[in-house]
Amino acid sequence: MKQRTKLDLGEFLPYLVNRAGMIIAEQFGIETLARHQLSIVMWRVMAVLASNGSQSQINLAELTSIDASTLSRIVTRLVRTGLLTRTRSTTSSREVVVMLSAKGNALVARLIPQAYEIEAAAAAGLSADELAVVKRCLRRIYGNMKGRPAAVRKSHQKRVAI
Amino acid sequence: MKQRTKLDLGEFLPYLVNRAGMIIAEQFGIETLARHQLSIVMWRVMAVLASNGSQSQINLAELTSIDASTLSRIVTRLVRTGLLTRTRSTTSSREVVVMLSAKGNALVARLIPQAYEIEAAAAAGLSADELAVVKRCLRRIYGNMKGRPAAVRKSHQKRVAI
Repeated sequence: MKQRTKLDLGEFLPYLVNRAGMIIAEQFGIETLARHQLSIVMWRVMAVLASNGSQSQINLAELTSIDASTLSRIVTRLVRTGLLTRTRSTTSSREVVVMLSAKGNALVARLIPQAYEIEAAAAAGLSADELAVVKRCLRRIYGNMKGRPAAVRKSHQKRVAI
Repeated sequence: MKQRTKLDLGEFLPYLVNRAGMIIAEQFGIETLARHQLSIVMWRVMAVLASNGSQSQINLAELTSIDASTLSRIVTRLVRTGLLTRTRSTTSSREVVVMLSAKGNALVARLIPQAYEIEAAAAAGLSADELAVVKRCLRRIYGNMKGRPAAVRKSHQKRVAI
């Protein structure tokens, strides 16, 4: 592959993805989450639990793309405010299971219509076909990154030593 | 519009955008930026300056989607490490202009091929047409959010009082 030496951010996929994600999160945070004393990261935890049911903390980190130590802090806070419960797994005592409390479920239910409102605003003017392509491709992009051979990643990290 | 009360994150655009953005940033950070003592946010600042040339700090905040106070902190750090310079604008003494130093330019030039490598890994298996649709739609999504009437946003925020 020919190496490009000039960066054109307006055509650079990681920039476009990040920029779109940031502005949606920012506006949803300001308009909707702030008055419930929720950050966007807290919302992501609650949304994943609402969508996928109770989760081990390990799966929750994976599904929310939040690193383990940050997630642990957030879960603790949401447990303290009564929105989540955290219990030992019945099958493995080392595993912690996190779920929405009744209060947490009720709050998510109130927020869901507003989440869909933000989504509709973001996707305004996109045809159903375009939206389907975008969603499919975003899932593929995630899968591509997730599935990159560890060898490739390692060879990059190794260059540190050079 | 009928209100949906169940959240299906696998079809929820904000989640898919965020998730794709996070994993790209994470891997680029670990594989490439860490050995240059750069965070992903620092990289974004430098990439915007490399792509768009020197910027006022206000424009830089806009182009990087980084809030003003965080950006100010990051610019200060990058100035200290010699990667950026910060000067008063010649046209307006209140305006601060940020640009890459020679050292900063050289570092970005070294990182660009690796940035394109990550982009290629992310977009693997997408056809040229799909990639074009995704990029166009992501720009549109950003524009939609950016262009939302302040009135809509205000009416949401006002509900805080209710």
